[in-house]
Amino acid sequence: MKTEIISVGTELLMGYVVDTNAGRIARELLTLGLGTYYQQTVGDNPDRLRDALELASKRSDIIILTGGLGPTQDDITKQVAADVLGDELVLDEKQLDIIKGVFKKRGTEPDEKVYREALTFKHGQTLLNEAGLACGSAYVRETNKETKQHILLLPGVPYEMAHMLKNKVKPYLQEIIQDEGVIESLFMNFNGIGESKVATLLNDKIENQTNPTIAMYAKPRHITIRLTASAKDAETAARMNQKAAEEIQEILSKHFIGYGEDQTIETYVVDRLKKKNLTLSILEGFTSGLVMSSLTRVAGVSAVFEGGLVSLNDKMTESQLGLEDLSDASAADAAKMTAEQCAETFQTAIGLSVTAEITPNTSGQLLSGTGYIAVFIKGKPVKMKQFPLPEKPQAVLRDLLKNEALAFLKDTVN
Amino acid sequence: MKTEIISVGTELLMGYVVDTNAGRIARELLTLGLGTYYQQTVGDNPDRLRDALELASKRSDIIILTGGLGPTQDDITKQVAADVLGDELVLDEKQLDIIKGVFKKRGTEPDEKVYREALTFKHGQTLLNEAGLACGSAYVRETNKETKQHILLLPGVPYEMAHMLKNKVKPYLQEIIQDEGVIESLFMNFNGIGESKVATLLNDKIENQTNPTIAMYAKPRHITIRLTASAKDAETAARMNQKAAEEIQEILSKHFIGYGEDQTIETYVVDRLKKKNLTLSILEGFTSGLVMSSLTRVAGVSAVFEGGLVSLNDKMTESQLGLEDLSDASAADAAKMTAEQCAETFQTAIGLSVTAEITPNTSGQLLSGTGYIAVFIKGKPVKMKQFPLPEKPQAVLRDLLKNEALAFLKDTVN
Repeated sequence: MKTEIISVGTELLMGYVVDTNAGRIARELLTLGLGTYYQQTVGDNPDRLRDALELASKRSDIIILTGGLGPTQDDITKQVAADVLGDELVLDEKQLDIIKGVFKKRGTEPDEKVYREALTFKHGQTLLNEAGLACGSAYVRETNKETKQHILLLPGVPYEMAHMLKNKVKPYLQEIIQDEGVIESLFMNFNGIGESKVATLLNDKIENQTNPTIAMYAKPRHITIRLTASAKDAETAARMNQKAAEEIQEILSKHFIGYGEDQTIETYVVDRLKKKNLTLSILEGFTSGLVMSSLTRVAGVSAVFEGGLVSLNDKMTESQLGLEDLSDASAADAAKMTAEQCAETFQTAIGLSVTAEITPNTSGQLLSGTGYIAVFIKGKPVKMKQFPLPEKPQAVLRDLLKNEALAFLKDTVN
Repeated sequence: MKTEIISVGTELLMGYVVDTNAGRIARELLTLGLGTYYQQTVGDNPDRLRDALELASKRSDIIILTGGLGPTQDDITKQVAADVLGDELVLDEKQLDIIKGVFKKRGTEPDEKVYREALTFKHGQTLLNEAGLACGSAYVRETNKETKQHILLLPGVPYEMAHMLKNKVKPYLQEIIQDEGVIESLFMNFNGIGESKVATLLNDKIENQTNPTIAMYAKPRHITIRLTASAKDAETAARMNQKAAEEIQEILSKHFIGYGEDQTIETYVVDRLKKKNLTLSILEGFTSGLVMSSLTRVAGVSAVFEGGLVSLNDKMTESQLGLEDLSDASAADAAKMTAEQCAETFQTAIGLSVTAEITPNTSGQLLSGTGYIAVFIKGKPVKMKQFPLPEKPQAVLRDLLKNEALAFLKDTVN
């Protein structure tokens, strides 16, 4: 079955908001074994939205639209879709109740326009929005082909969309594709190994893949492998994935950081620290809080991380960590000293120091330099890593240093 | 002239990488008065890329493709485009020199495949990539219409794309549209006022807009107004924009935070602190470094910000700031105390404290609570703001609190 995603919104088309919805939908579809073939973005323009939907109708089996379900005149998705499908819109009583409940909590009355958010296809199925006001809607269309066509409308607010996707759309799609057997995906995550290295090591497996299939996705310092097995029942599919996963894990064990689509290096590190009963404090220079704000995204992080310091110069670091001769030390020695003293100041088992020496290039647009990462664990000698930072924009270098710091920390607590 | 953007890459279509390029291109086009009408995303699939390009050829005057220029077999954009356009690919000597230079610096030899990145249209124009290896390419096509059609290929690596966009594509397009007169854009930024409020206040102006046109873009707590004037020469257009800007500024003066497409609340705050010769330190609880890492994106921030503390609990804050009775105080009083003590500890003129009391909802997926922001300026009573945090995911609430903190800081140093 071919799926297609249409993102609706002038703010997306003009680039004032980055579209994260299309990607999220595509990832969720993949876990059902559904590949996205096309993606279009259109503005809040009825004619062009109609064209986009008609184009999609000709080539795709499942068409998911996101955005344009709100209460304003710009929100045209429901009306345009109803016109194209030859259906009409009616109010959904359950969504109306949700809307009234939200406004009651706020202590205000909803504007008349707000009720438009409860509109749904008369001959379709409502996808309730339990995290917002505008309901989604699904419509099944007969085609000349054996399979029916499904058109789904989802809200554009990212977390409302995500909530509906998980709780309403996924079960809906699971029912559609059930006839074709069960498809199960298993995600494996690896850190600190490059895409080409993984491809080489798994070459045989990738070339001979049939069921489960093996797909690989690379982010900076992070590789996700998705195994997708199809079988008669979920249990069999899961067993097939598990068997393949164990074989892959054997080959890449050193870099494995866990299963799951949401598993990150941050989740892994926090988990390891918890298991080892180790607390951590952090000193950040060039990254200025990026490492700490990343790590603290993990639920339950406060069991192992309680605080840290951002410092942009030696004098500040000296006064906050109670050091005296930092400015006289080399940057490498300073990294070691501050890691140890960070643990001392914050009374933690581990101290992590993340700093850099940075020089702007002649045009001033790009930076380069040297990164320093040091980890002190009580009772052990300090470990330090120093590496060149290539000529890149500031934001790229800060992310690079953050990723290196988390990877180095991971290796230390592994 | 209608423009269309095609993003190429299976990793984009499948949602494993968020596409930031299409938006960046659309924003840059707007500064030239060029509106984006369509945006498509396709995978590394020659047939579907061909279809996408042929569809775009039928409806758009300027077609910009991004991605798929690299050295691997997946990188098909140049070849598919050459086929569709009936042109062939040749090596560009200048790009070859850049490639050889990069490898010489690394001390290694390039793989034969790498040279493919220097391929360009034989009858087109090369867009040199000075920030990477793969050159872009532009092709002019005769059409049945009065205007010619332009097809541009750009790399997919975001900062390489951004570099080429600014330095090669913008001048290229400026030349194309010159015949139609000069178009100049002016961006104005506002903080702490809602989209509908701005729309109401500027209603007359927006309804009667002709030249310059007025467009409005809303982000959380940030409104950008783009004025676009067309005139015979740049000076006249700039003057027209300036006149309209002054009228708008008069109406919204309280919220104005400066001109420019890249102007942010962070840039504004750092600028104000510099002008007033004030230094700042920050204590972050729930945001855990988000405020500091945002603020330190601004070039030259170290003149006013040297450091701050992340602390997830009272005990840690007490020991690091030398406070004794924090746990006994109300959260509101604690916010005031920590703002003042932060300034004392870090020896700065201003202390900013950003904290929250947070409760997870029953399912544990969403959080809610109360945010506290306090600003201490030496010699003045501490200012404090306390406000409810609605039920949302953690990441949404952290961003919300960060934005509120920066807005409150702005009001204080205005």
